[in-house]
Amino acid sequence: MAQDNSEGLMGPVSAEARAAMKGQRPFVLWLTGLSGAGKSTLAEAIDQRLHGRGLHSYVLDGDIMRHGLNRDLGFSADDRRENIRRTGEVSRLLVDAGLIVVSAFISPYRADRELLRQLFPAGQYIEIYVEAPLAVCEQRDPKGLYKRARAGEIRDFTGIGSPYESPLQPDISLRTDLMSPVQCVEEVFAVLQRRGCLQRG
Amino acid sequence: MAQDNSEGLMGPVSAEARAAMKGQRPFVLWLTGLSGAGKSTLAEAIDQRLHGRGLHSYVLDGDIMRHGLNRDLGFSADDRRENIRRTGEVSRLLVDAGLIVVSAFISPYRADRELLRQLFPAGQYIEIYVEAPLAVCEQRDPKGLYKRARAGEIRDFTGIGSPYESPLQPDISLRTDLMSPVQCVEEVFAVLQRRGCLQRG
Repeated sequence: MAQDNSEGLMGPVSAEARAAMKGQRPFVLWLTGLSGAGKSTLAEAIDQRLHGRGLHSYVLDGDIMRHGLNRDLGFSADDRRENIRRTGEVSRLLVDAGLIVVSAFISPYRADRELLRQLFPAGQYIEIYVEAPLAVCEQRDPKGLYKRARAGEIRDFTGIGSPYESPLQPDISLRTDLMSPVQCVEEVFAVLQRRGCLQRG
Repeated sequence: MAQDNSEGLMGPVSAEARAAMKGQRPFVLWLTGLSGAGKSTLAEAIDQRLHGRGLHSYVLDGDIMRHGLNRDLGFSADDRRENIRRTGEVSRLLVDAGLIVVSAFISPYRADRELLRQLFPAGQYIEIYVEAPLAVCEQRDPKGLYKRARAGEIRDFTGIGSPYESPLQPDISLRTDLMSPVQCVEEVFAVLQRRGCLQRG
């Protein structure tokens, strides 16, 4: 710079300062589960409820990531791992910026989800297992993907040609074949409330 | 889901709704220029000023990206291109979430910066050329990188072994060898004001 002095310039804005300005505590809700289990539906509903409470949140899902940042990635085990790694890093940036992030990804591998957890300070990564029996998911088949996988048109489809490793100790479990979407969202907010995640400031 | 009806569930939260809640217009300030030109210093100062006005902003720079999302990338032309592509996509997500993003990257190639601009709606990508003569940047050498590049320890260092293509029509130009940091920040805010970027809501 032309002058060495920094009159009028101040230090960096901390994550705490950004979150405090927003009057909220940032964290990530990570929704994992089979295709068709209801992750996207619930992510949207949770986001909507957070927004309705005046909280600043953002949804990441397969569509938004694979059409942009991760459009160079396929569905091999390596590419799935990289998809989740990048999404975790983006979630971390958003949390650092003070936001509440709702990430909805099949994220089938336990090891990858453990790496995710380690990206965040304790309590800021909340794993939600969105669970329904494979037969139910396959019957719902909202995008017709199970049909295509069974027909051999999609290789490595989770639950058919590729494994899903269910969470051993998720923070929240939601059986979407037994509970309505509204009941699921209620359960999520009850846990968030209990943990103090929704306290202001 | 157990029930088909969506009682109590509403549609997705739009980018407009998120920005409106924050009472700000989201955009990205993209700072490009040689190493040592002053990008990081200015990014931090701009971010601080935005924060002081109660605006919600976030800084992306080489350090934060290369230690996380882009830690698999080196400095070849291809990797630099991918570094900028990913950073552009992350900037877009942050803008979509309603934030003002301040991105500071050498981003030496004109073609890459044109791709960036196309990621954003008109007026939401604001290119700032942070400019100082190479000799000045090399004399400042805040990280000792020019010295190492001249010694042959760093290949492809921008300005030494690798080209910097200066912007032909940047939105804002700042000569950091002629203006103080405070003057540079004033100039940025004068332009933002003139363009209506700082209007609330």
